[in-house]
Amino acid sequence: MKKIEHIGIAVKDLKKSNELFASLFGEPHYKIEEVKSEGVNTSFFKVGTHKIELLEGTNDESPISKFIEKKGEGIHHIAFAVDDILSEVERLKKEGFIVLNEIPKKGADNKLVVFLHPKSTNGVLIELCQEMD
Amino acid sequence: MKKIEHIGIAVKDLKKSNELFASLFGEPHYKIEEVKSEGVNTSFFKVGTHKIELLEGTNDESPISKFIEKKGEGIHHIAFAVDDILSEVERLKKEGFIVLNEIPKKGADNKLVVFLHPKSTNGVLIELCQEMD
Repeated sequence: MKKIEHIGIAVKDLKKSNELFASLFGEPHYKIEEVKSEGVNTSFFKVGTHKIELLEGTNDESPISKFIEKKGEGIHHIAFAVDDILSEVERLKKEGFIVLNEIPKKGADNKLVVFLHPKSTNGVLIELCQEMD
Repeated sequence: MKKIEHIGIAVKDLKKSNELFASLFGEPHYKIEEVKSEGVNTSFFKVGTHKIELLEGTNDESPISKFIEKKGEGIHHIAFAVDDILSEVERLKKEGFIVLNEIPKKGADNKLVVFLHPKSTNGVLIELCQEMD
């Protein structure tokens, strides 16, 4: 793993939260993006060179809506950038981590993403992401 | 705010989790530190230039023990580096954020720290930290 690519925060109302986080960071989000396959609307903020992603579910079946129902709004995942997602998934499987999707899927922000099950990582939902060409 | 300084993860058993996260990141923690005033043992990992802090409560009254009791293990806070913690606290108070400790206190890793109440930040516990001289 190379670095923290972003931190994902689950929110109920993206519009309201965009205002809140703009006040917090002192500048507004720089882009929004819908990821239809995941049922989420997202927005991105920069803090220095770091990214914070807000996620709002677009329907009740969205993983974000379910997360909020269970745990409330808050930090949802940490995404780590990797160079070669397939070899990293192989390495982590051998280490005993539970991979939620072995076939990388298309996430927001032009990334291929794989998630690790929180029950194998101390309750932390971890996303691996590789920039798509 | 300049950058994400670190992400804090609440764990029940620091020794076990140090092994788990060493497998995850592909290298072991580089330091451990007790913060007696907060009732926590901490360890630090590097992922590229980023830091991950694991926190274990040392007694039942520790904020970490209470967090785990309520929410289970998982991501506990995001810490953002600031140059001038007092002026940043003033700015955030004016924006309507609830500051948990207006007087910065000594945190791990030679930092002065202030926390914002999660109820004012979409459920996210945010730490501001300034390097001590």
